[in-house]
Amino acid sequence: MIFIDQLKFDANGLIPAIIQEQKSGRVLMMAWMNRASLERTLATGKTHFWSRSRQKFWMKGETSGHTQSVKDIAFDCDGDTLLIQVEQIGAACHEGYQSCFFRSIQDGGASVKSTEPRLLQPEQIYGKK
Amino acid sequence: MIFIDQLKFDANGLIPAIIQEQKSGRVLMMAWMNRASLERTLATGKTHFWSRSRQKFWMKGETSGHTQSVKDIAFDCDGDTLLIQVEQIGAACHEGYQSCFFRSIQDGGASVKSTEPRLLQPEQIYGKK
Repeated sequence: MIFIDQLKFDANGLIPAIIQEQKSGRVLMMAWMNRASLERTLATGKTHFWSRSRQKFWMKGETSGHTQSVKDIAFDCDGDTLLIQVEQIGAACHEGYQSCFFRSIQDGGASVKSTEPRLLQPEQIYGKK
Repeated sequence: MIFIDQLKFDANGLIPAIIQEQKSGRVLMMAWMNRASLERTLATGKTHFWSRSRQKFWMKGETSGHTQSVKDIAFDCDGDTLLIQVEQIGAACHEGYQSCFFRSIQDGGASVKSTEPRLLQPEQIYGKK
């Protein structure tokens, strides 16, 4: 695993992974990987992350079915960020949008606008809570 | 500044900012902002970051002239990552590539390939050292 040894994981053993939909170029989300979740991503071809809040592994889509098939893994000049091209099934965002970045600012930050339609309601993805 | 108050800066007061070239969709780099550098970005229309290694502000392109004009600022569902669309002058990467993500893995991580041409040699950007 030559390339993994070129990466710089942070003090918590994590590296940020930017997830981009290869077909559209849309940036879908950013999440964190540790070495083991990256290895699992490589081994399975599906994105796996490390949840800092829950302190556990998760495969994207393990509950929702909205998995990501890995098409390309790039890393930056400093070796401290990953850029992963994927084919996304369903909605990347747990709030039901294609991308987690569904809001942009306007008026210099004085207000916020939604920039894409909601594809699904969260309860359609995860069931009613 | 309503939107800034929706953001979650980390324990060091930082938030990651993904920089994407609006025209091409190419993800150029990822860097860190604190509240003041984000405010300066909003005020000037040019990206400003916080250097964790140098513990100082920097405007992208302050030395190289390779500045980034901000076209859109989006933030994610959790409010802990920014996605900024820019118009990039010159090369985003300090190593002379359009994007810092100029290397991708192949053969499941066993080797690495360069995915874009080098536009400039670093000494053409920063002078000989």
